[in-house]
Amino acid sequence: MKALIFDGSLQIKEVPDPQPVGREVLIKVLISSVCNTDLEIIQGYMGFTGIPGHEFVGEVVTPGRPLTGRLVVGEINCPCNNCYLCKTGRSTHCPNRSVLGIYQHAGVFADFVVLPEENLHPIPENLDPQSAVFTEPLAAAVEIFDQLRVRPSEKVFIFGAGKLGLLISQVFRLNGCDYQTYDPNLVKVNKALEMGLNALPLSSLTPSDKAEACVDCTGKAIGISTAMAHLYPRGCLVLKTTIAKPENIDLNQIVINEFTIAGSRCGPFKPALNLLSQKLVNPNPMITRIFKFHDIVEAFDYAAKPETIKVLIEH
Amino acid sequence: MKALIFDGSLQIKEVPDPQPVGREVLIKVLISSVCNTDLEIIQGYMGFTGIPGHEFVGEVVTPGRPLTGRLVVGEINCPCNNCYLCKTGRSTHCPNRSVLGIYQHAGVFADFVVLPEENLHPIPENLDPQSAVFTEPLAAAVEIFDQLRVRPSEKVFIFGAGKLGLLISQVFRLNGCDYQTYDPNLVKVNKALEMGLNALPLSSLTPSDKAEACVDCTGKAIGISTAMAHLYPRGCLVLKTTIAKPENIDLNQIVINEFTIAGSRCGPFKPALNLLSQKLVNPNPMITRIFKFHDIVEAFDYAAKPETIKVLIEH
Repeated sequence: MKALIFDGSLQIKEVPDPQPVGREVLIKVLISSVCNTDLEIIQGYMGFTGIPGHEFVGEVVTPGRPLTGRLVVGEINCPCNNCYLCKTGRSTHCPNRSVLGIYQHAGVFADFVVLPEENLHPIPENLDPQSAVFTEPLAAAVEIFDQLRVRPSEKVFIFGAGKLGLLISQVFRLNGCDYQTYDPNLVKVNKALEMGLNALPLSSLTPSDKAEACVDCTGKAIGISTAMAHLYPRGCLVLKTTIAKPENIDLNQIVINEFTIAGSRCGPFKPALNLLSQKLVNPNPMITRIFKFHDIVEAFDYAAKPETIKVLIEH
Repeated sequence: MKALIFDGSLQIKEVPDPQPVGREVLIKVLISSVCNTDLEIIQGYMGFTGIPGHEFVGEVVTPGRPLTGRLVVGEINCPCNNCYLCKTGRSTHCPNRSVLGIYQHAGVFADFVVLPEENLHPIPENLDPQSAVFTEPLAAAVEIFDQLRVRPSEKVFIFGAGKLGLLISQVFRLNGCDYQTYDPNLVKVNKALEMGLNALPLSSLTPSDKAEACVDCTGKAIGISTAMAHLYPRGCLVLKTTIAKPENIDLNQIVINEFTIAGSRCGPFKPALNLLSQKLVNPNPMITRIFKFHDIVEAFDYAAKPETIKVLIEH
């Protein structure tokens, strides 16, 4: 099959088809999308080499299985199902897991991919594949509500109107709360406004503007201190940003103001599919451009531009 | 009256008696104790000058008030009762507040002090003043349970067996959970063991030892990274340590492991008085030495020694 290989540089190569083992099934990839993690991987994140990519919609092609012939999305963590964390409902944190296109598991930027059957969710009939490919990042947005109680009567600030920020903003809008999304980039602010979201340039934020909950999805080291500066005492800061190196944080501010800082990562697919299929979250305006698979190296360059929201790949 | 004055150096001076204003009453201080914050104040913390001290038991001496003649302890924050934070149950975070012996309010290391009546709690009949003086630090321990749900079936690590660590350990013991207190100082570990607490030298902790909740009350910058290294994914770290300067923190670990970091400060007096008066928390073994007020400068030196737990002052 054809696959995008990262081994220090990125190129399409001819490689053997993956072989499903045990509970795995073979999936023909139909559509995929480029995530920030993919961009970080080609900068050396996780020391990954091989086929990257973890956001996809595909068709199960292994014959004789319950999902054979169905269009599916797939959870990216492949846990051992046997350790303490798996047995206590934290399989996405299993220390023995592989992670699709990120850690010890070949990814979706290829003709075919294998995943365990239990990772797969058939996409509802009325959900088009171009929307369904947003299930994984939308699940990461929904994760915030799986972790915390967000009161609809609270004021919320979301820092960052990138891919994840736009999905998070949509999920907060559904909560009914008074949310406000900030970004320094006017193109992103305008995109958010176009989508009917409450968005403002970061420069319009004054020191006295404060919220009961802040979400940092800036992807930048400065994000956490900006958010802390605009959080009421006893407020909660959700941290989505991962950055390359340890950062200086004023821990005293956390103690004195009794802030809660909640790290947040992968989330649940089922509610994300519910929101997409019921058209309560609309990801389509976030699609900046769709590339054919043979142009995927160019698609990576395009995805890295500051004004690009989401790049999709047709296989 | 006689009062301990900090104005760059510490000395007992003759000063005018404080004059109660509005809802304030005059309190004759009977016993006080030296807190780490007092030791930090004489190093320049908060830029405080004047009479330090905030842990006390006293007798209300203003005539004709509901509490006249009663022995009381007192909450240290004097809020405006009028701002957004006061009106939303966060008066300990009121931006307009003064703080007894810490910020714009003369403290208890003196013959007399004034505090608003609503800050005062009469001590129960069966509670001796030497135990009651621990109400304020015990309230800070209880605050953890006001902020978080701690499941009795969880494993908890407490880092630090100092003043606050010993009180926090006692409160966790009452929860029924499998807690373990660690300190690098063997004198403190032995004191904890003497008190019937689960304590071990920090050196006995191995990299695979993990807990669902960790409390950092080490008072040291290294505390948060130690605690994070021994926390299960999705675990909660309670931060009690305030340190002088911003510290390098690996934020990625917070996001990847979905840790919750909860800053924690002053707490509720009522449950602390309940626990003390019902002898469920016993602070007496923590009293290292009792000084007379005229020796309070020496008491500060003594309180700063690493092996000292708690120093009390008889007025």
